[in-house]
Amino acid sequence: MKIELAKNYGFCFGVKRAIKIAQNSPNSATIGELIHNKEEIRRLERDFSVKTLNDISQIKDEKKVIIRTHGITKDDLNLLKNNDFDVIDATCPFVKKPQQIVEKMSDQGYEIVIFGDENHPEVKGVKSYSKTPVHIVFDEIGAQNLNINRKIAVISQTTKKIEVFKKIVAVLMDKSKEIRVFNTICNATYKNQEATQNLAQIADVMVVIGGKNSSNTKQLFLISKQFCPDSYHIENEKELEMSWFKGKQICGVSAGASTPDWIIQNVIKKLSNFKE
Amino acid sequence: MKIELAKNYGFCFGVKRAIKIAQNSPNSATIGELIHNKEEIRRLERDFSVKTLNDISQIKDEKKVIIRTHGITKDDLNLLKNNDFDVIDATCPFVKKPQQIVEKMSDQGYEIVIFGDENHPEVKGVKSYSKTPVHIVFDEIGAQNLNINRKIAVISQTTKKIEVFKKIVAVLMDKSKEIRVFNTICNATYKNQEATQNLAQIADVMVVIGGKNSSNTKQLFLISKQFCPDSYHIENEKELEMSWFKGKQICGVSAGASTPDWIIQNVIKKLSNFKE
Repeated sequence: MKIELAKNYGFCFGVKRAIKIAQNSPNSATIGELIHNKEEIRRLERDFSVKTLNDISQIKDEKKVIIRTHGITKDDLNLLKNNDFDVIDATCPFVKKPQQIVEKMSDQGYEIVIFGDENHPEVKGVKSYSKTPVHIVFDEIGAQNLNINRKIAVISQTTKKIEVFKKIVAVLMDKSKEIRVFNTICNATYKNQEATQNLAQIADVMVVIGGKNSSNTKQLFLISKQFCPDSYHIENEKELEMSWFKGKQICGVSAGASTPDWIIQNVIKKLSNFKE
Repeated sequence: MKIELAKNYGFCFGVKRAIKIAQNSPNSATIGELIHNKEEIRRLERDFSVKTLNDISQIKDEKKVIIRTHGITKDDLNLLKNNDFDVIDATCPFVKKPQQIVEKMSDQGYEIVIFGDENHPEVKGVKSYSKTPVHIVFDEIGAQNLNINRKIAVISQTTKKIEVFKKIVAVLMDKSKEIRVFNTICNATYKNQEATQNLAQIADVMVVIGGKNSSNTKQLFLISKQFCPDSYHIENEKELEMSWFKGKQICGVSAGASTPDWIIQNVIKKLSNFKE
């Protein structure tokens, strides 16, 4: 069995940056998981004493607080800043952008539509920058059900699929005479998606590595499954099952933007052993 | 054979308004055809002495000049106003709107994309209101070929198909991080298209009446043909051929926004005679 890596995969700019920031800020705490990868978070806690808190209410003696890549709400950020914490902002710049857009558009009186998952921390954060009504839609049907009577600005969670975003905008065009479309899907997401799609078209089995709560990894898995039905989403090499690869010629490997390289290498190593 | 009229068809608000204006302004001249219907234009000339000139260079002794429903270029309009003509503006308000949008967006530094036919007078007029580059795209492929590096505002010729407009916006979303989408397709166009589609789905022969140079009639014909292969685009009853209706059960009739009711009635009358 030939093992082939996607042309683009794994750590994006924002995740690399956040990990570097965390490693340079030992004895600190992050509000929520810094990135959606439990193994990397365990490593940061073990080697750099970077703790993970669920929310700001859990802060006790910590002085240094790191803002996760997905950002937090405007209120929480202000609260931290106004209470003299040493706030270290690891919010991905590509997530800052939709926060700023939403704030500006809301100031100009636009209603906001966010294509994303309402429970995802990035979406919760971005949403908090609006004063005008915010509609969060998960898919095309969600957009069809919207009741909108005025001009709208629409943005996307950075890790979503562009094809679905396009369909949502098409639906909104029936509902509003003026729409401001900001394509906030980040380039790394776009490239990883494109590379996964290309690889899934030639592979007969696909392994997509990343946190089960990682939005961008879930998207990669969905794309992979669409083009290669034998696709598997795993968090690490322990989940691999030999039976998946029986009689397969090409095994494609891709990984989400929050998947560290050492996990990817462990998976590849174990896959290589299956060959023999 | 049953003859069934589309639920919405024929004269729109802007056309009705323009004809009323022309009838109230005898002994005048229009710059270009007031509406895209030669028979109605002949009637206005015969009964109200409203002449049709090709362009402003043809003006001789006329004092009263009527602006066509599709509008004219900003330069031509200024020239007329500055030369003391009695300018009677019959530009459809739904065409004024994209003119104003283009002027405003261009002032704010947006590049303009117009979904439309570059040779259509409405598009020529709307385009003239921009100081920034204007890209006119006729279809999805035209959009794919565009080279755009900045924020864009996109509008549509008022008489175009919404489905194609949506596809064009989807293509533009790959090319620009910020797009302002103004759905300038007029409501009458939208309703006539919807009604034609519904009727074409149940009819086994369709007759679409309107000028061969009428953009909105051409769109109706394309929609009709998509759902009922035996569709015919005619300008008047003289073009009807009995053979089209042999063995047909339901004949659907629709008409463009510039098709006067008396022409539609003539067609229906002749169709009724085919029954016997």
